[in-house]
Amino acid sequence: MATNPGRGSRSTVAVVSGGLDSIVMAHLLASQGDAMTVISFNYGQRHDRELAFAVRAADHLDARHHLVDLSALAGVLTGSALTDVNIDVPDGHYRDESMRATVVPNRNAIFLSVATGLAVAIGADAVAIAVHAGDHPIYPDCRPAFIAAFETQARLANEGFAHPDLQIEAPFLTSTKVDIVRLGAELGVDFAATWSCYRGGDRHCGTCGTCAERREAFREAGVLDPTSYERPIMSDRG
Amino acid sequence: MATNPGRGSRSTVAVVSGGLDSIVMAHLLASQGDAMTVISFNYGQRHDRELAFAVRAADHLDARHHLVDLSALAGVLTGSALTDVNIDVPDGHYRDESMRATVVPNRNAIFLSVATGLAVAIGADAVAIAVHAGDHPIYPDCRPAFIAAFETQARLANEGFAHPDLQIEAPFLTSTKVDIVRLGAELGVDFAATWSCYRGGDRHCGTCGTCAERREAFREAGVLDPTSYERPIMSDRG
Repeated sequence: MATNPGRGSRSTVAVVSGGLDSIVMAHLLASQGDAMTVISFNYGQRHDRELAFAVRAADHLDARHHLVDLSALAGVLTGSALTDVNIDVPDGHYRDESMRATVVPNRNAIFLSVATGLAVAIGADAVAIAVHAGDHPIYPDCRPAFIAAFETQARLANEGFAHPDLQIEAPFLTSTKVDIVRLGAELGVDFAATWSCYRGGDRHCGTCGTCAERREAFREAGVLDPTSYERPIMSDRG
Repeated sequence: MATNPGRGSRSTVAVVSGGLDSIVMAHLLASQGDAMTVISFNYGQRHDRELAFAVRAADHLDARHHLVDLSALAGVLTGSALTDVNIDVPDGHYRDESMRATVVPNRNAIFLSVATGLAVAIGADAVAIAVHAGDHPIYPDCRPAFIAAFETQARLANEGFAHPDLQIEAPFLTSTKVDIVRLGAELGVDFAATWSCYRGGDRHCGTCGTCAERREAFREAGVLDPTSYERPIMSDRG
């Protein structure tokens, strides 16, 4: 895992959804001494309750927070179960092909583009996003090749305005969710104050792809899972 | 100028601000037979009156139109005269260093990212943007290297979901504004139904960078300029 020790003087814009991965990342950046600005997006996701956890994490870490209303995107980025209430969120394992229904077209590129704009506006050195290795099979905008190409593009887009070596940082790019849970436990993250469930009900459903992945990660990490799930787990592999 | 003859069967998402360049581009794409979806953005720009001209052009060309409310970005992409009423829009020539005040951090990358998301959602083959050679000196997100890097990144971000050869098309990338005015005249564009002025008053101010460029382009193209300007031109070079 790239934890970038010794980078304590950086100014970083952190994309934080309110999910487990991004909140552990925010704690990691804070532990490294980064001057952090947190940015979160309402994009019409059905699980917009995640955003309250992003706000809480930023507050806890004493970071400035921008909650950006991009809810108009729900009418543009159609065809995803996350933004269209007429498409069911599938049960199953996070790596199943059925999870393609949860891909929001170009979502991470849009988030990173806005976060990059903020980084340029405030003179930050880096933009951080919590994509991880478990995301790679289904979500193309979480893969190493995308992150690298995005960084190249972002530097060109802001040549003469951004830091010439503006970093697009993905500290969990080669980590598993199990690694992230273990790191979060080391960093003292309050996991109960993170939200994963795509269904966005009052409690985690326990059976959608991201709930299945969350449960599995706690179990494999040997870390107590404080989450209150609605339904018992169906199977380890969906 | 890349006019891409013979590409009549494409489905294209066209980023149209309501300015002269993007409206000429929309006419060009329509003349090539592209099935066009127009997308425009309210990003808190002081000259949001340009958007009415984008709506009108889409209607005239019988294209579907998305007007996307990204006005929350004005609180994020700070430091530009276009989105901050406390920063004056400079007078002068479009290529003057003073025009750096009109750069909105990462704006075109954000617009292209959202347009790419729409292209993926509707299965379009291409995204088109009307950047031109006159933009290159000041605006890094209008340069050829940026457009090429963006295309590489956009394909990776949507691998398996977008057309593998998704095009980021910039038909005016090597054109001057003079070329664009000439082409618009050939295509029968109603130039009075386009908006350039950054100040966004009731009439074009006539002296801001983009007004100066507009006037100069009509004069050099030998095309009648139907624009009603508020003030006489100060000088050809600001």
